[in-house]
This record gives sequence, structure tokens and C-alpha cells, in this order.
Amino acid sequence: MTPTTGVPDVLARSAEKFAPAMKAAVERLTPDIRRMVGYHLGWSDPEGRPVGSPSGKGIRPTLALLSAEAAWADAEVGIPGATAVEAVHNFSLIHDDIIDGDRERHHRATVWVLFGVGPAIIAGDALETLAHQVLLEASPATGAAASAALAEATAAMIAGQADDIAFEQRRDVSVEECMAMSAAKTGSLLGCASSLGAVLAGAPPATVGALRDYGRHLGLAFQAVDDLLGIWGDPSRTGKPAGNDLRQRKKSMPVVSALAAGGDEAEELRSLLLGPADRSALVRPLDSDQVERAAYLVDACGGREWTTVRAKAHLDAALGALERVRISAVPHRQLADLAVYVVERES
Amino acid sequence: MTPTTGVPDVLARSAEKFAPAMKAAVERLTPDIRRMVGYHLGWSDPEGRPVGSPSGKGIRPTLALLSAEAAWADAEVGIPGATAVEAVHNFSLIHDDIIDGDRERHHRATVWVLFGVGPAIIAGDALETLAHQVLLEASPATGAAASAALAEATAAMIAGQADDIAFEQRRDVSVEECMAMSAAKTGSLLGCASSLGAVLAGAPPATVGALRDYGRHLGLAFQAVDDLLGIWGDPSRTGKPAGNDLRQRKKSMPVVSALAAGGDEAEELRSLLLGPADRSALVRPLDSDQVERAAYLVDACGGREWTTVRAKAHLDAALGALERVRISAVPHRQLADLAVYVVERES
Repeated sequence: MTPTTGVPDVLARSAEKFAPAMKAAVERLTPDIRRMVGYHLGWSDPEGRPVGSPSGKGIRPTLALLSAEAAWADAEVGIPGATAVEAVHNFSLIHDDIIDGDRERHHRATVWVLFGVGPAIIAGDALETLAHQVLLEASPATGAAASAALAEATAAMIAGQADDIAFEQRRDVSVEECMAMSAAKTGSLLGCASSLGAVLAGAPPATVGALRDYGRHLGLAFQAVDDLLGIWGDPSRTGKPAGNDLRQRKKSMPVVSALAAGGDEAEELRSLLLGPADRSALVRPLDSDQVERAAYLVDACGGREWTTVRAKAHLDAALGALERVRISAVPHRQLADLAVYVVERES
Repeated sequence: MTPTTGVPDVLARSAEKFAPAMKAAVERLTPDIRRMVGYHLGWSDPEGRPVGSPSGKGIRPTLALLSAEAAWADAEVGIPGATAVEAVHNFSLIHDDIIDGDRERHHRATVWVLFGVGPAIIAGDALETLAHQVLLEASPATGAAASAALAEATAAMIAGQADDIAFEQRRDVSVEECMAMSAAKTGSLLGCASSLGAVLAGAPPATVGALRDYGRHLGLAFQAVDDLLGIWGDPSRTGKPAGNDLRQRKKSMPVVSALAAGGDEAEELRSLLLGPADRSALVRPLDSDQVERAAYLVDACGGREWTTVRAKAHLDAALGALERVRISAVPHRQLADLAVYVVERES
């Protein structure tokens, strides 16, 4: 294989190619909505004045561009896909922050905190619609297929989010249910991002399917790492309080697999996180002593190890999917490097 | 022209044609979301048990079916358009109820009140996505154009909703701004509904354009009547408290045109509805004496008359648009009758 530049360089180069299209898409929004979206994307302050650098790593748009190149097309062919996927991803973040009551993202107040719940709902709605406009205008030959693929992925993502909420009310979520929810919530959109450029390039179904599988496994690996960072991540790097997911009693992969282990420590964890059957106990977040104890128990019950093994297994499956079809060598290597990077990240 | 059956019969016949497709579309949603949507549509109680008759008049799906027939196609061709428009309309209702804090619709608790804000956001998101799935699967030849038309209308509707919220914070909304907001918020989706069947039938642009203009004017007439009913509607028919829009200090067409009249009574209305420049006065709804006085003042300043004249003018413009192109006679007459019905309705 040809040697390639490192992942941060690939991300930076993609961002450069993709930024003008994203700016142009956001320009189409009405001024009030544009101000919220520009703020959310880290382009501007709450008053709309330009500021520093955008938030987020830009992994999804990069995947969309690489998937066009993997299918032997120019990266430019994937740009509408990159824009659309980034729009849907950010629509889901803006709505999720309302749903989860999260007040901060990347050390900044979330959109609903600054602008109100109603306007934040509208900003998300506008981004979802914008994504389809961008794709349907992209290419007469392939735009409709791309839009259909994105709608399917979005529907799965939303179903996963609904399950995630429902699980909060339940004491008996199985490991299988948890993995299926993650596959829907995170895997489907990453699977779409990783294949949308190829769809726009008119690639054969086998190529699109292999790239989508790569992205779905990458999404599950990504979610596993996210769940590990949600318990053991360094607050100065993740931008969230230590053990944030435990504090919020989130049924993440490490927790659910630890609870499934059985035994005294799993029972202690269950009563710590889920309280007595009486639901009122669930209202308050855990305090920091409880968070520390819960993190110990998740580890002791094998939840950390299990999740780490799953992250590696999904990384291997993602890399394996890339071998199923003949794709262009340089983007092949860059997709592989990106997958490793995602699993090894610390924020 | 051939004599046609009355409007209620046309609506009932459309509902019969359209209901199975809408049921099938909603069946695709994940169970938790399906329960919320089924409840919202009046199909079931909060636990998902089937109940009485659906809420809403079904004007939008009927328009979509008639627009296919107007373009000399079978009504069936318009069914995916009817389903998609109904999905988008209900997505906007579910989200609007959260945004406006409305606790009741058609004498029933709204989705967010029953299921929570987070789940209600998700239910709306799912319906928006479902609309595009339905259209993109409808017809390889015309589904993409239909999806693009719906995305454009949805984007305009969302922009109108953003303006509507922004206007609540302002004391100086002009009649022109108010009309532009209504055109975006209500007119764009009705314009889409009234032409989507023709788009799916592959009708020429002139036909699609005339039907869309019919629907846009119908939307403005509809909104004008809605605004009149929001002040002078009979609570037993509208399902909302008497003078509800005044109670909520809404800057509807009658209010904005009355404020623009100038003079002592307009100033009294302004201070009653908008309070002193100090915003804290805006938090509380008007009491029933204030509502009664405000309704008198809007009438005295000509707001009722102005809005009634506008409703008639848009009705005439809607009927005029239908004369611009040659469309099939029976649906032509039914579209015309439907427009008159919308303007003369009392709920």
C-alpha cells in the first residue's frame, strides 16, 4: 500500500474541502436558525460573531469523502453526502441535548440552554430538512438513492434514541438490547456516512454494502469507546465531569455487561445505579463517592474488560469489511487508520 | 361542469383511500414512537388501545389525492404524497405543541404532556423522516422530485415557525411580516399538499405551479380564518378556550392589522396585549375580562374586517390559480368546493 498521511492530516484536509459546502448549506437557513446552528457548530458566539475553530472532529464528513474516493471517484463527489450527514448528526445532537437535559457540550452551553427549548427544536428540525435538500439537489442520477439511504439511517437512529429513553425507565435491559440500541443509534448514521460518497458516485451495491458494514462496526466500536470514556475518561479531555455516565445512571455497555455478570458486586452495582424498585430514587444523580464506587464495581464485574474486547472486535470487523471488495488503495488505508484512531482516542 | 358530491363526502372518500397507506407507514415506526403517533392521530388511547375516529379533517391528504386526479392520474398515484404531507403536518403539530406549551389539542392532552418532552421531540423527528422514506420509495421516476418539493415546503414551514417565535419577542411586527410568516408557516405546506399528487403523476411544471399557487393561497385563507376563530370562534366547536389567541397574546392577523390602524383604541390594544416596554408583563396570559376587551378593540380597529377581506381575497386567488391551466373537471370542482369550505368553516 502507498504510505498515507496521518489521521489528523486526513481529517484536516477533509475539513478544508468540506467547510465551504457546509457554510453554503447553513447560509440557506433563516437568520434566527442560522445563528443557533452556527453557534452549535462552534463557528460563532451566541450573538453570531465569528469565533475560533469549529467543534467536533469531523469524522462523519471525512468518512463520506473517503467513501467517494474508495469507490474510485473524486472526493468532491462525496461533498453533498458529507454536508447531509453532518447536518443530520448535528440535528440529533441539538435534540439529544434537550432530551437528556444536557446543559454543556464541548465546554459551551448547549443550544436549548442559550436560546430556549422551542428554538432549539426548530434548529434541529431545520437541519434534518436541509440534509435532504442538499442530497436531492446533488446529482439527478444518484441524489435520490443517497437521500433514501440517509432517511433509512436517520429512522434507525431515531428508533435507537427512543429505545435509549425507554431503557432509562427499565431495570432489566439485556446486553443484546443494549448492543442493538447502540447499533441503531450510532452505527446506522456512521454506516451511512461511510457509504454515502460511494452511493453518490454510483458504486455497485457490493461496494456500498461493504463500506456501510465498515461504518456500522466502526460506529459500535466508537460507541464502546465513548461508553468507556463516559466512565473512565479524563474530564480535561472529554469536556464532561468524571464518571458522567455513572452520575447520570446511564445504562451504557460497561454497566449493562457488568450487571449481567451476576454475584454480590453486580447486585451492589444494581442497587447503587437503579435504586430500590421504587422509582423516586432515580431522580437524583449519583454523588462523587457513589460514582467512584460504581466505577470500581463495573470494573470488578468485568464491564470494562468486556467493553474493551467488544470495541476491538468491532474494529476488526470494520477492517474486515474493507477487505470484502476492491476499493481504491489510499482511501482504503485512510479508512483503516481512521478506525484505529477512533478506537484509540481519549476524548 | 359535472356536479360533484359535497365536501364532507369528498373528505370521507379520500380518508378511506388514504387510511391504509397511513396505517402502513406508521406501522414502520418503532413501538414506543408508534404508540405516541397513533395517540396523536386519534387512533388510540395513551396505552395504544384503538379508539373512536381520527382527529383532524384530513384536508391535506385530500388535496394530495385531488391534485393527482387534477393532473389526469388516478387518485392512488397521490397516496404516497398524502401520507408524506400528513406525516410532516403532524410532525409540526407535535413539535409546535411543545414549543407553544399547548397542553390540549382536540380536547385531548398533547403528546408531550402525556409522554414527556423528549419522547415527543423524537416522535416528531420520526414522522419527518418517515415522510421522505415514503416518497423516495413511491416512484423511481417522480419520487425524488416529490421529496425535494416536500423538503422545500418543510424548510419554509420551519422558517415561518422560527419567525413566529421571534415575533413574540417583538413589539413592532408589521402586517407584511405577519403575512409573510403565515405564507411560510401555513401556505408552503398546503401549496405542497395541493401539488404533490401532480408531481408524483409527472404533470408539467405549469400544472404543478398552478396547483401549488392554489394551495398557497388556500393556506393563507385558512390561516386568516384560523386567526378569526382564535378570537371569535365558538369554544364548543374549536375545542379551545374563548379568545384563546388573545389570552396567549398571539400576534395573529387580526391583532397585527388592528395595531397598525393607529389611534387611541389601537394604543389601548397595544398596551393590553404587549404591556409596557418592560417584558415581565408578557409572562402571564390575559384574564377573561381583558380577553373580552381586547376582542372588542381588535374589532373596533378594523382587524376583524381586514382579516375577513384577506381571507376572501386569498380564496379568490386560489380559485383563480385553478383557471390558469387545464385540469380535470371533477377534481377542479372539488378543489374549488374545498377552498370555499375551508373559508366558511367554524372549527
